[in-house]
Amino acid sequence: LSTQSQITCTLFPGDGIGPEIAESVKTIFKAANVPIVWDEQYIGKTADPRTNSMVTRENLDSVLKHKVGLKGPMATPIGKGHRSLNLTLRKELQLFANVRPCFSLPGYKTRYDNVNLVTIRENTEGEYSGLEHEVVPGVVESLKIITRIASTRVAEYAFKYAKDNGRKKVSAVHKANIMKMADGLFIRCCREVKEKYPDIAYEELIVDNACMQLVKDPSQFDVLVMPNLYGDIISDLCAGLIGGLGLTPSGNIGANGLALMEAVHGTAPDIAGHNKANPTALLLSGVMMLRHLGLNEQAENIQAAVLTTIAEGKYRTGDLGGTASTTDFTKAIIGHLS
Amino acid sequence: LSTQSQITCTLFPGDGIGPEIAESVKTIFKAANVPIVWDEQYIGKTADPRTNSMVTRENLDSVLKHKVGLKGPMATPIGKGHRSLNLTLRKELQLFANVRPCFSLPGYKTRYDNVNLVTIRENTEGEYSGLEHEVVPGVVESLKIITRIASTRVAEYAFKYAKDNGRKKVSAVHKANIMKMADGLFIRCCREVKEKYPDIAYEELIVDNACMQLVKDPSQFDVLVMPNLYGDIISDLCAGLIGGLGLTPSGNIGANGLALMEAVHGTAPDIAGHNKANPTALLLSGVMMLRHLGLNEQAENIQAAVLTTIAEGKYRTGDLGGTASTTDFTKAIIGHLS
Ligand SMILES: CC(C)[C@H](C(=O)O)[C@@H](O)C(=O)O
Ligand SMILES: CC(C)[C@H](C(=O)O)[C@@H](O)C(=O)O
Repeated sequence: LSTQSQITCTLFPGDGIGPEIAESVKTIFKAANVPIVWDEQYIGKTADPRTNSMVTRENLDSVLKHKVGLKGPMATPIGKGHRSLNLTLRKELQLFANVRPCFSLPGYKTRYDNVNLVTIRENTEGEYSGLEHEVVPGVVESLKIITRIASTRVAEYAFKYAKDNGRKKVSAVHKANIMKMADGLFIRCCREVKEKYPDIAYEELIVDNACMQLVKDPSQFDVLVMPNLYGDIISDLCAGLIGGLGLTPSGNIGANGLALMEAVHGTAPDIAGHNKANPTALLLSGVMMLRHLGLNEQAENIQAAVLTTIAEGKYRTGDLGGTASTTDFTKAIIGHLS
Repeated sequence: LSTQSQITCTLFPGDGIGPEIAESVKTIFKAANVPIVWDEQYIGKTADPRTNSMVTRENLDSVLKHKVGLKGPMATPIGKGHRSLNLTLRKELQLFANVRPCFSLPGYKTRYDNVNLVTIRENTEGEYSGLEHEVVPGVVESLKIITRIASTRVAEYAFKYAKDNGRKKVSAVHKANIMKMADGLFIRCCREVKEKYPDIAYEELIVDNACMQLVKDPSQFDVLVMPNLYGDIISDLCAGLIGGLGLTPSGNIGANGLALMEAVHGTAPDIAGHNKANPTALLLSGVMMLRHLGLNEQAENIQAAVLTTIAEGKYRTGDLGGTASTTDFTKAIIGHLS
């Protein structure tokens, strides 16, 4: 491949185990002849006054320029005046939908064996408004914001995603029996969008019932769409069904093709630097990125190699009950590339 | 037993399958020589202006007078100006803690076999404030209220419950990384109360992680305490782990011994009147009521008979995969009373 045809993408290796799993992704992508060059970006050590966060203006500009990026785990230092790094990226880049495919990994046994669903979470508002105040001492108000624009935008994304990916049903999750106006608005927007998708089935579930149904029988679900906090909760719940956040990819989608895929697990400081981390979540997030770029052949090739390696079970990292190092696991995956 | 020693308790049979399962409870309680007479209460057919709900002043006064009650499922009619009946009871009676023990039923197989935990949910505020407004068209604000008083009260209940019931650990569930002030206050109150209970272990979990941990390994939990909405979600999730809301009891606890136990499943209009409903949730809620009244012997006797009947598997209702009628199941339980 000539450098002409190379696509530049932003890469945030992140903290803790981030650099090791990012290395694994780079190695595997190279071995699979993925035509990507990385613009590696590092979060600042002190807050950038232009972003009120350690995410710098340069970090944001890199994603805005290349439009597509991949992100490892980042640790937000505890302390005042620092916005969460993850949230800063989502908000500043207006990445309005968080997409988390969740599927049972062949050969990796959990209590559930036929999970295959996608949660699509509104990613910019809701309970994440950051608007809170103490009315009088000991009484705090926290504002949940639901807007027609953001609700319609994420509902449209969910139905289009369902259609484009051959999925059959969208389930909207809400608590409109209690938050009649806020979640009521969200649900109304979903119903309006549904009108444009006669071939996609649609249902509504109250969030408590949705969680109960998910643990009883996740196979009844296909695409789920919901406000921010329910999405945060339900996407983690779903990850738990198939083995945890170390295995599930995630993507943050914005307007005009902007996309930042990310591994949503933690930085695992206890094993950082020990060549023990499982790169699967970041790898599968990278696969989502390739699909987003239309590099479907490379995406399939890498995903198949990852799944085969896990299914074979010979090289598994510690979190999956094995003893393989990150680099051994990486080599095994490369061995399965076609 | 002389009528002298009888205790009067309020009973709301409720709607749908409510009357049938309430009948089962009454029959079994009588057979077990439980010294209770019931003050049966029915919700009004139209809204009572004094409560802005179909819960009438007489309904509330019955519970306030007898202090202890049992409640079947109630359907809140859809429409404007009607507050949820369940919420009206909880709010008007200031039933500040919702307690849901959740344990695997011997012999009734689900994906999980050693669940034994209790969720304790703040029951009066949080996301259930009812305070919402449309700021401009298409922009809704919904207020979550967290107070020091209510948070401390439910934390105190949780630690005392743990101590009184021989439990070892309290896990506080929150999202204080996002709702720093609101959930931050909740967590600070939990930490303060914890100081008074050196023998009870204490941990904090972010709500998304808590849900993931619950589906991965619920046996790591003992007592969980949390704000209203997380409690709503997590108690249903937990019910799902052991088979559903038809099997889990629940209690709403107020000040000075006030308590209203309730089955939190729905009214199941599809099978109402067909002698098919499973009375287990209401029965076990009744058992919680007996313990609350100090009638521990009768509580143990009835609980053991219910569990034995389910474990035997000969008489199970349709929801548990059997064909027994409500009355057959009831008779089988009575046959197991000692
Ligand atoms: C780290 C945290 C702010 C974040 C969230 O709550 O969105 C995380 O839980 C996630 O789901 O990506
Ligand atoms: C019926 C509904 C208002 C109620 C709630 O949200 O509290 C229910 O889900 C429950 O948990 O008892």
